[in-house]
Amino acid sequence: MQIEKAVITAGGPGQRALPLQTLIDRDGQTKPALRILIDEVFSAGIREVAVVVHRGDVDAYAEALQEQAGRVRFLEQPEPLGFGHAVATAADFVGKNPFLLLVGDHLYVSRAEESCAAQLVRMAGKEGCAVSAVQPTHESRLLRFGAIGGQPLSGRPGWYQVERVLEKPTPTEAEQSLIVPGLRAGYYLCFFGMHVLTPRVLELLQQELQEAEDPRSVHLSLALDELARHERYLACQLQGKRYDIGTRYGVFTAQLALALAGRDRELILGMMLELLAEYVQDQGTDSAVPKV
Amino acid sequence: MQIEKAVITAGGPGQRALPLQTLIDRDGQTKPALRILIDEVFSAGIREVAVVVHRGDVDAYAEALQEQAGRVRFLEQPEPLGFGHAVATAADFVGKNPFLLLVGDHLYVSRAEESCAAQLVRMAGKEGCAVSAVQPTHESRLLRFGAIGGQPLSGRPGWYQVERVLEKPTPTEAEQSLIVPGLRAGYYLCFFGMHVLTPRVLELLQQELQEAEDPRSVHLSLALDELARHERYLACQLQGKRYDIGTRYGVFTAQLALALAGRDRELILGMMLELLAEYVQDQGTDSAVPKV
Repeated sequence: MQIEKAVITAGGPGQRALPLQTLIDRDGQTKPALRILIDEVFSAGIREVAVVVHRGDVDAYAEALQEQAGRVRFLEQPEPLGFGHAVATAADFVGKNPFLLLVGDHLYVSRAEESCAAQLVRMAGKEGCAVSAVQPTHESRLLRFGAIGGQPLSGRPGWYQVERVLEKPTPTEAEQSLIVPGLRAGYYLCFFGMHVLTPRVLELLQQELQEAEDPRSVHLSLALDELARHERYLACQLQGKRYDIGTRYGVFTAQLALALAGRDRELILGMMLELLAEYVQDQGTDSAVPKV
Repeated sequence: MQIEKAVITAGGPGQRALPLQTLIDRDGQTKPALRILIDEVFSAGIREVAVVVHRGDVDAYAEALQEQAGRVRFLEQPEPLGFGHAVATAADFVGKNPFLLLVGDHLYVSRAEESCAAQLVRMAGKEGCAVSAVQPTHESRLLRFGAIGGQPLSGRPGWYQVERVLEKPTPTEAEQSLIVPGLRAGYYLCFFGMHVLTPRVLELLQQELQEAEDPRSVHLSLALDELARHERYLACQLQGKRYDIGTRYGVFTAQLALALAGRDRELILGMMLELLAEYVQDQGTDSAVPKV
């Protein structure tokens, strides 16, 4: 299965400025978060990228992308009708093809040579089916993610056959439906924010959206839960971590992770130590004038 | 001397996105850098604030300011003609009053109860003259700042009578004109990015701008150098530090400094330690699948 299209959703209310936050990537290049994501996508061999944006944000995003803007299509979500609706907005762009889906409020830091997206696209291409990247996550953080239940694939550590998908489950729901053999107690497989999906997912989403009273109630997880009943649908752990930059100190944490994993490791460690040393020094002194 | 007006320059080319970068302030509030600066200004008892912006940036900045926007006047700099020109753009707004000037690409972290701006405004008000905040800075970083030469005020540690001002001096120029008795060898008094200025400064700036072939060559430092010959003009060290968010990792460093100085100290230290521990762990392992 060849995966040549990618969709990035960046339309969430209250999240519109996130893709424009400037960070320094692993290679030491300063760029908006959205460009880091699009680099990630292209590194996976994707040829066509669509970014789903809130109506009116196209200009700001296109400006942030600079020379990349010509390689990216913007799809405007006319109203903020939720994540499911945002993904469905890309139906015409996706057509009858499998596609990579990333969420615009995450950054991904690979611990391997390949980027996270490249790992996922390669592996999903080989499997020939929908694959969601997942990350074992403590139950205290379940309320922020979609999570899956399923069975480990025998002899293939880190791979799972997905049986259930629930959006932001309560610990009780998770305990009833999402326990995965082999995980540490209290941990569940939460979405990593990166999927390779088949066009069937969009059909299921559109169906759900038509039937729903409020499109905002239709989350992608609903369609994925349905997908698990129709198609072979796998989940896998990648060599890397996701950072939700929409959380408090999310940008800061992602920046630190990028720097520690990349070219500026020594530099960032030095800067942090210098600042910490100043801070400790301050705690211990009481001089009226800062030291020279 | 009552200081009731403030000017923030935010028009620099290549720096236009900086005031929109989102950070978490000392009180744990998430806001764009520009709002943190404006909070700083209001904390000093300032009543009227003008922000000098690049033409066309008013809407984005006004949106970022949210409810503060009504208390702030935007002055558009029609072309990016340099820092001196940006300050002169505020001449009508300032009129015949002393004013606080901040640069929009810095953040200030006080180590006292009072904010840096409040310290400066209080002290300048008492002196009744122009006062520039300065910070002892190693000669290796001279190329990024304006710097002063002058004499310490006797019996008043951290205070100086300004005699010379040079913009981004070479180490040789600094050694010839800017050595200040009492500083550690190799250190000079560089601008902190915060001044209380008299209207005379704007007259001098406008004169320089009229005489210059290229307005971009007229830096504020030129007018301040001239000011030192006309008026009593002091410099002082504040209890705090400035962070130039326009440098590489400038936003990251400022964020760390804000968090360490504020409410989220424990939180940020914990997050850093967690990430560093993961990083160290990764360096020592070689497992195919991330640990659960």
